[in-house]
Amino acid sequence: MKGILYGVGLGPGDPELMTLKAYRLIAGAEVIAYPTLEGSDSFARSIASDIINPETEEIVVEIPMSVERGPAQTAYDLGALKISEKLNEGKDVIVLCEGDPFFYGSFMYLFSRLNKEFECEVIPGVTSVTACAASIATPLTARNEVLTIIPGPINEVLLEQRVAGSEAIAIMKVGRHLPKIRRVLEKLDLTKFAYYIERATLPNQIVLPLSDAPLKAPYFSMILVTKGNDPWL
Amino acid sequence: MKGILYGVGLGPGDPELMTLKAYRLIAGAEVIAYPTLEGSDSFARSIASDIINPETEEIVVEIPMSVERGPAQTAYDLGALKISEKLNEGKDVIVLCEGDPFFYGSFMYLFSRLNKEFECEVIPGVTSVTACAASIATPLTARNEVLTIIPGPINEVLLEQRVAGSEAIAIMKVGRHLPKIRRVLEKLDLTKFAYYIERATLPNQIVLPLSDAPLKAPYFSMILVTKGNDPWL
Repeated sequence: MKGILYGVGLGPGDPELMTLKAYRLIAGAEVIAYPTLEGSDSFARSIASDIINPETEEIVVEIPMSVERGPAQTAYDLGALKISEKLNEGKDVIVLCEGDPFFYGSFMYLFSRLNKEFECEVIPGVTSVTACAASIATPLTARNEVLTIIPGPINEVLLEQRVAGSEAIAIMKVGRHLPKIRRVLEKLDLTKFAYYIERATLPNQIVLPLSDAPLKAPYFSMILVTKGNDPWL
Repeated sequence: MKGILYGVGLGPGDPELMTLKAYRLIAGAEVIAYPTLEGSDSFARSIASDIINPETEEIVVEIPMSVERGPAQTAYDLGALKISEKLNEGKDVIVLCEGDPFFYGSFMYLFSRLNKEFECEVIPGVTSVTACAASIATPLTARNEVLTIIPGPINEVLLEQRVAGSEAIAIMKVGRHLPKIRRVLEKLDLTKFAYYIERATLPNQIVLPLSDAPLKAPYFSMILVTKGNDPWL
């Protein structure tokens, strides 16, 4: 019997926002695995750290810093190989994923290498999008409103097209794209509806109207725009 | 001291997909509250039923069946009044919400009536969108892909506009809008990328390629379209 590959969502950061199923699988794991960016700790592992058993075996998939795609590809190949060895021994492997495994996550690079040969199960998690809505204490979407989720790195013309016409917008992975995002929201007269959120649900969370946001943003930051025009409210 | 109003997300249906925080708040609740549609049981309450203490007081906010908005408004007014009585007695009130409270939820109608007078906290939950992606075992979004979340009831022209140009699309609350949605996806040559999911994560879940989906869909069904064109996969 081969083991099962589990992609487990850990939610946005507060360990209490992991699901009961994530808790059960991680606390009982024989083997866990997680990617790290070369030289950095794993954010996903930090969320789960209090419940990882000291006897659980850990596979670290170290992704090199590079703008090229080749080195990362090779790292995922190697990680998938190490994981497949455990699965072939009949051990389940629990891959730790921040947020949700299939929502802008790196889990898919392991999944795509392993899902033909092994049984895989994905445990969805709370995403940073609804966590940020809770942090700004503002309903994200109601009734027939369209929600558009946009990665910050897309080009300015496309960003403007996708923002226009949506009642609610979440712009993820803000980082160095903040000036571009500000320009687009200002042009569309949406700055007054926009919030800036850094590290949602963590103790050092920052929540500000976009007009008061810092000039520099980390990668794990988000801008939420909710026009809040539901006539029921 | 007044009590705190908690809007607690319970996730898509599988009770194990509630968060540790939702579990703690519900299991220890003095008062819970939830809306029901006249004559129906509460789906949110059914998710939490195993952990509700028999001594917990329950406030049912019964929403009348009506196409008019007035009767529902009146029902939320009355529900907010009952909840405010408990809060004024210093008791916390835990509102049970399927999915996430601020993601197309009715919680906002209670929140908007109570958040000026009382402290409110929202506990985000796993949404049906990422639960459906897990159910079809397909990554939803990668890297710089745009995800558009669209309620099925919007008109056909708008639906087509919002679907076109997105790499991933979730169409919620399909119900009687299924024929319209099929027409739009067929016109945009997206049927081959589309899945139909009913009651994701529940024991009676149904997952089918859209081309094999039934002719009639319940309200709690979803269509996911993921072009899966990430060159890394």
